[in-house]
Amino acid sequence: MRVLSHGKENASLKIGILGDGMVGRTLAEKLTALGHEVKIGKRGTFGEAAGFGDLLMSCTTGTTSLDALRSCPPETLNGKTLIDISNPLDFSKGLPPTLMICNDDSLGETIQREFPQLNVVKALNTANCQVMVNPARVAGEHDLFIAGNSADAKQAVTELLRSFGWRTIIDLGDITGARATETLMFIWMRLYGMYGPLINFHIARA
Amino acid sequence: MRVLSHGKENASLKIGILGDGMVGRTLAEKLTALGHEVKIGKRGTFGEAAGFGDLLMSCTTGTTSLDALRSCPPETLNGKTLIDISNPLDFSKGLPPTLMICNDDSLGETIQREFPQLNVVKALNTANCQVMVNPARVAGEHDLFIAGNSADAKQAVTELLRSFGWRTIIDLGDITGARATETLMFIWMRLYGMYGPLINFHIARA
Repeated sequence: MRVLSHGKENASLKIGILGDGMVGRTLAEKLTALGHEVKIGKRGTFGEAAGFGDLLMSCTTGTTSLDALRSCPPETLNGKTLIDISNPLDFSKGLPPTLMICNDDSLGETIQREFPQLNVVKALNTANCQVMVNPARVAGEHDLFIAGNSADAKQAVTELLRSFGWRTIIDLGDITGARATETLMFIWMRLYGMYGPLINFHIARA
Repeated sequence: MRVLSHGKENASLKIGILGDGMVGRTLAEKLTALGHEVKIGKRGTFGEAAGFGDLLMSCTTGTTSLDALRSCPPETLNGKTLIDISNPLDFSKGLPPTLMICNDDSLGETIQREFPQLNVVKALNTANCQVMVNPARVAGEHDLFIAGNSADAKQAVTELLRSFGWRTIIDLGDITGARATETLMFIWMRLYGMYGPLINFHIARA
């Protein structure tokens, strides 16, 4: 029999993380601490991580995210929710970086088009990984953005993000909202150079 | 003899505004209320407004800003500071709008390149005109961004913006910072659709 904490059940999830860089490892540590089961995949083992997870997280470098997903057997992806955390930053032309995809398209949309069997939710791509898993590292009110075509998938992701400590999660609508958050990289990179990684956006209103 | 208020002199400026749309007219009203002399130019009279002003404001639709400046006699521009308030939004391909220039360039940079005799300061382009001239319309902390190559020009613009009521003005560095603020339009347009025009960005920090 399961002991419920805080009066509600926080179900343990099986989560497959694509990408063993700083972002993937930081998220894996947080998710494990929260009681979830996690498998990290890297080149050669992306499919194993995808096959393991009921929920997937794309944490590869944005320029390689599509190749990572292409290397997964289709049955490891079908019907699953994928949180797309990457940005299509291209550092190959020097600094400041450009975006490989932007303006009339985005990485999130590109993944959703090529993998219609996934429910892609763009989220967490506007914060450094230290802030992703511990929003209290940044002072005052600050917000997270999500975008995706599936309301159910966004609801499940929102619940997971709330367990990370996120309070204000702004739903930008369908996956075209990924254009709005990936292009925040232009100012984020500049602010990062001025203030370091512990920064985030807040939308002030009337 | 001039009566000084608040213990310091707020010098009256002669300001030429290029563009007679909502943004130009709202700024003209505010500047006049603050005691400045203003001339608004539109197609056919841009040069008169530029010739009048010691400080210039580019408030034309972003897609027409370069043509407006090209129509001004060079001697009306030489050595002056231009606050570039426009965004290169292109609504011709439907909604959401795209940017005519972005990623590895910006409208602010394009103006500065073509008119090296101007000190271009990108500012005010991330807020609706009601918020530009009255930041208190939005609740809580929220910020304005400036970018430009001339420290003196940015200082003069910062003083003017403080007289509008702006408290936190973040200097993003040289005019390439215009890429960072013009691309905020992608999320601004989306948030405008959700919340209306009385919104603004705040950068939260550790």
